[in-house]
Parts: sequence; C-alpha cells; structure tokens
Amino acid sequence: MTTVTRYPESWMARALVLARRGLYTTDPNPRVGCVLVKDGHQVGEGWHERAGEPHAEVHALRAAGEAARGATAYVTLEPCSHHGRTGPCAEALVKAGVARVVVAMRDPNPLVAGRGIALLREAGIEVEVGLLEEQALALNPGFVSRMARGRPFVRLKMAMSLDGRTAMRSGESQWITGPRARCEVQRLRARSSAVITGVESVIFDNSRLTVRAEQLELPGAEGIAARQPLRVVVDSQLRLPEAAACLREPGRTLVATVEGHDEERRQRLEAAGAEVLALPAGDGGRVDLAALLARLAAREDVNEALLETGATLAGAMLDAGLVDEMQLFVAPTLLGGEARPLFALPGLETMAEQKPLEILDIRAVGRDWRITARPG
Amino acid sequence: MTTVTRYPESWMARALVLARRGLYTTDPNPRVGCVLVKDGHQVGEGWHERAGEPHAEVHALRAAGEAARGATAYVTLEPCSHHGRTGPCAEALVKAGVARVVVAMRDPNPLVAGRGIALLREAGIEVEVGLLEEQALALNPGFVSRMARGRPFVRLKMAMSLDGRTAMRSGESQWITGPRARCEVQRLRARSSAVITGVESVIFDNSRLTVRAEQLELPGAEGIAARQPLRVVVDSQLRLPEAAACLREPGRTLVATVEGHDEERRQRLEAAGAEVLALPAGDGGRVDLAALLARLAAREDVNEALLETGATLAGAMLDAGLVDEMQLFVAPTLLGGEARPLFALPGLETMAEQKPLEILDIRAVGRDWRITARPG
Repeated sequence: MTTVTRYPESWMARALVLARRGLYTTDPNPRVGCVLVKDGHQVGEGWHERAGEPHAEVHALRAAGEAARGATAYVTLEPCSHHGRTGPCAEALVKAGVARVVVAMRDPNPLVAGRGIALLREAGIEVEVGLLEEQALALNPGFVSRMARGRPFVRLKMAMSLDGRTAMRSGESQWITGPRARCEVQRLRARSSAVITGVESVIFDNSRLTVRAEQLELPGAEGIAARQPLRVVVDSQLRLPEAAACLREPGRTLVATVEGHDEERRQRLEAAGAEVLALPAGDGGRVDLAALLARLAAREDVNEALLETGATLAGAMLDAGLVDEMQLFVAPTLLGGEARPLFALPGLETMAEQKPLEILDIRAVGRDWRITARPG
Repeated sequence: MTTVTRYPESWMARALVLARRGLYTTDPNPRVGCVLVKDGHQVGEGWHERAGEPHAEVHALRAAGEAARGATAYVTLEPCSHHGRTGPCAEALVKAGVARVVVAMRDPNPLVAGRGIALLREAGIEVEVGLLEEQALALNPGFVSRMARGRPFVRLKMAMSLDGRTAMRSGESQWITGPRARCEVQRLRARSSAVITGVESVIFDNSRLTVRAEQLELPGAEGIAARQPLRVVVDSQLRLPEAAACLREPGRTLVATVEGHDEERRQRLEAAGAEVLALPAGDGGRVDLAALLARLAAREDVNEALLETGATLAGAMLDAGLVDEMQLFVAPTLLGGEARPLFALPGLETMAEQKPLEILDIRAVGRDWRITARPG
C-alpha cells in the first residue's frame, strides 16, 4: 500500500462533491457529504440522498466498516445530535471509533448549533470546524436561511430581453429564451422546496409550475420529478380560477391570500384542489410577503423558494428586501419600450434611489445569457 | 544569422497590430499596417498614422532600405494605385523591387478595388489576397462601410441599468455606469469620425460630445484629442439652444434638420457656431436618417459614427436598419419600470415582431459589463 498525501481541503472538496449529489432530492433536509480517511487513504464515503433515509455519515461509516476506527471524518455539516428518523450521527461517529472529525460548517440552527460538536469532543474526538465553510454554506442557502433567519432563501428567476422586458404589452412571452435556458429553469425549480408566483402570472400563462422530468436533462430525472415543489400563488383577492392548470398537477398548490375573504370562494378553490392560506393583510390590503415567507419556512419547511412572476410581485419582493439572489436569463433580442418591464419599483424617481446589484456570474446558456446577481 | 521560420499569418498579424496603432489618428483614412520580410526575417515595418502623412508601405520601405529588394510585403489593405497626397503605394513597392505582396483585403471601394493589385501583377510581382481578411475588415468597419455602402458604420452606444433603463423618468442619468465604462466611451468617440445625437439629449444633458484627452487613458492622448469627431445633432425643429455647450467646444457641430425651417433661426444657430444641414423631410416630417448618413459619408468622409442618444432616435435608427453594432454598457443596478427605456420601437406588439440580436462579446469593464451586439 503506497502512502498518498492529500491536503485536508481535497478531502472536504470530495465531501462537497458528494453532498451535491443530493441537490435535487434531500429536501427539506440539507445536502450533506462525508468522507472517511485513514492513513492518507479514503476508506469510506457517503451522502444524504433523501429525507427519511440515512445521513451522509451513516453511509460513509457503513462503507468503511472496521476501517472507520481511528479514521478522520470530513463532513460538510456539523453532525446532528438529535434523535431524528435515523438516530444522531454524532453518536454513530463516536461508536465507530472515529479519531478526528473535520466539519465544514456548524449547524445553522442557532438553537442546536454546536451540540453535535460538543458531543464529539466530550467523547474525546478531536474536532476542527470551518474548512471550506463558504462552499458548504453555498450548497445549502435555503436550509441555512430557514434555520438562521426563519425564512426561505428566495431566488428570483426572470427571462428578459436585452432591453429588460419580460413580455409584450399584451402579456405574450412564450418564448423569450431558448430551450437551454428553459432547462436551467426546470433545474432551478427541481432544487427548490417551493415555487412562488403571482395570480396574474397564473391567469395569463396558465402555467403548471411543475418540474418535468423530460426537461431536466439529468440522470435520475424521474426520481427527481417525483417530488414536486410546493406551488405558492400570491392572490390577495382570491382570483385564482378553479380551472387553473396548476391545480390539476401532482403536488400541492397553496393559495396565499389575506384574511376576511369570501368563504364560499375559498371553499370552491379548496374543492378544486387548492389549499388556502389566509394571512393578516399587509400594506394596501395585499398579502404580507414577509409573513408569508416566515410561514413557508415554519410550517412548510421551505428552504429554497423560486420566485417566478411578473414585474409587480417581483418589484414588491425586491422592495421589501426579500430577494436573496436573481437569476436573469437574458435573450439576445429587443422587445421595445412598450413591452413589460422587469420590475415595477413604483416611487423610484431619482438616481440616488437606484437599487444597486452585485453581479456574481455571467455565462452563456445556449444562445441566451444567464446573470446571477444579488441585491447590493 | 539563424533562420527563423514563421507562418505567413504571424507576419500579417504583426501588420494588423501595426495598423491598429492608427486606430485613433488616421481618420478619414483607413488604418493600415505593413511588414517587409526577407529570408524569414522582418526587414521593415510601418503603419499609417495620420491623413496627409505617408502610408504604411512607404514607412516600411524606408525602414527596410535596400533590404526591400526581393522581400515579401504583408499589407493589411490593397496598396493604393491613385496619386493622392503621397503617391501610389503600389508603384513604390514596384520601384523598391519587392518580389511578393500578400494583401489581407482588397480596397473596399468597388470603383477602384483590384487596381493596386493589377498594377503590382503587371510589374511581375506575385500577389496573394485574403490572408486574415476578416481581421483586416474588422479593423476598418467605417472605411469599408463608407466605400462599399456609401454610408458610415453606425455604432450605437448606450449606458443602461440591468433592467434596461437609460435614465430616470425625469431624464436624470448621471451616472449610470462607472468611470471605467465612461473611459471606454471616450475611446469610442475618439475612434469615430462623427458623434450623432438627438436634440433632446443635448437639451437635457447639455453634453459636450467631445473627446477629453485626460479621460482617454491612452499614450498620446493629447494628439488624439486634437482631432474632435464631427458632432451631429438631429434636430427636425431646429430647437438646439444657441447656448448649447457643444457649440463652444473645439471642432464642428452640424445640426441636421429638414428643409423649409425658419431662416432667422438658422442664421442665429450659425452665428452661434453651428453648421446647419437641411435635408428633405422624411417620415412624419422628421430628418430622413438614411439620407443624413449618406450625406455624412459623401460630404464629410464619415467612416465610423457613434450614436449616443435616447430611446426615440435610437429606436428610429434601429427600425430603419441603420445600426450596425451596439455597445451596451450595463451597470449592476435597477432603475425600475418608470425609468426611461433603451429603445422606443413603437408598433412592436407581438413576440413575432421582436428584434433579434447577435451577441458578439460580453466582458467586465470595471464594475459594469460591456455587451457588443449587432442586429440579427
């Protein structure tokens, strides 16, 4: 057996690669990967695939068997200390006789953070925290947001022309972007716990808001599409038609409205397959968006929410500081000054009030361009 | 002396690099470079620097002296055959005893194309045409356009927010983009024969439309800024204020209007320093843009024209098919749906009528992004 020298970063990088395999399937759990290393060699690896199934550490320990004794475990997230559906992973690591644990990031839930690490240390295991932490955080923006801030990570997706238009004045918009960009949007839906839209968009496009296996172009697409993200329709006036296509798709549709609406209308929508969530009214009698997000995190375990909507709701979310990331798919076309804008942003009148963004990435996606940005 | 083997492409590439040195100074002449090669070694090189001064071939022949005899000349443009201010270059190559001439592109003027080549061949010189032709064409888009189409190459420059806005509703726009992007705009002006704008833009911004040496960040900036591009203000109603800043700057300001306007107003503008060009009225009594461009090519030798204007004139130029290239400087900011659009494009109502673009390049310019596109 030759001795292989590798940097700790490369073992953790491997654990992150493994974790990423759960990108589309672990929801509402975080994506986690684990690598067991002994004498400079990997003796086991694992990742969390699906809620209810074993955690990454358990998979890796099983793969290593007796070789786990005295090994170093590289884990992308602090091992859990609670008795969930699979038993605490910290305990499993102790039992297997692991000598050292390297953790990329602490548990983002401030109420439990550090308990897994403490449990390990109490058992005499050396624990190191923070290796490739930034990468580990980036892998689970939604889980981190839900645990640390009590709301989902909101990713706004928009398809726009180069002159910043999302649809013609009539509302016609199919298709601004090409098939490659639409496949990327399908993948964004597939990694999300929920898709949020406004009732106007549903009325105009009658969009299904579902993940379609055949459009994902991913291995295991059927299994991925078996879990449909929760569809959330923001609908202050309960205008959603009972015939809306999204009500007949697999998965759940939640209609977020304000309290005090027509009970009969509510019952009709429920009979058509919707779940109606009535929230106290916010500004102007509209749905309080921050309250909605808090509810989605607390009651529906929503980690990443994909916002797919028009200028009004997108602008309101942005104005309320509730957008964490933007995915702008820019088509090489012009729709002109009469076409519909990207964001409404009423009241924005002077240059001093402009909304700065930070562009994180620009890349080609087929004939279109994908810009990743965040509010600055 | 060791023998150096180089591909013909590398000699022509060198000639193109030399030609590019005249990017900001040769106007209205084309940028041309020349390399003389003998026995695998460069024996002379030159480029055209300024109208009225020697052409590239003459500089290269002077540098080579007797070594030019039997050499191969790599020239980026077909050597001229006419007796201009400096004598025909084709004749000079013959006299110097050059054995072979490699030309990247023919003279784009259909009336004279091939004469220089014919003159060389008649003298027994071997001539090859077309090496790196595409690159040679790209170096002189304006000269090629003027000669081949009788109109300038029109480059539309716009500074926009990520949501496709060029100014607030009030017209306020200083500054959407950062200093790096503004420096690039200065360089675009400096390489242009003319800057075209609409009277609205001049009235609102009172912009000078000049090249400022200190903002070019180029060696020889003072010399470059000594030649100011012709300022062209499209002004159907002769509304340009006599107090406009651009009328007091070095260089000429041409006010393009329609025939039949108030003679007194015209005289007042001329007294204020403007030159007034009255053209037959086009659609809706506005300046006929195609006629204006033809006039600028024929009378003013305008090669590259930089269009710096608002949504109306930009949209009209685009609609008329008169925009050859777009330089969009995109700032990472949002100005909202009330702000001014990129292009007016009235009458564009359905997706089928959208204006496709071809994106040629996207790159970072400071904190902004520069998109080079052309109508598709």
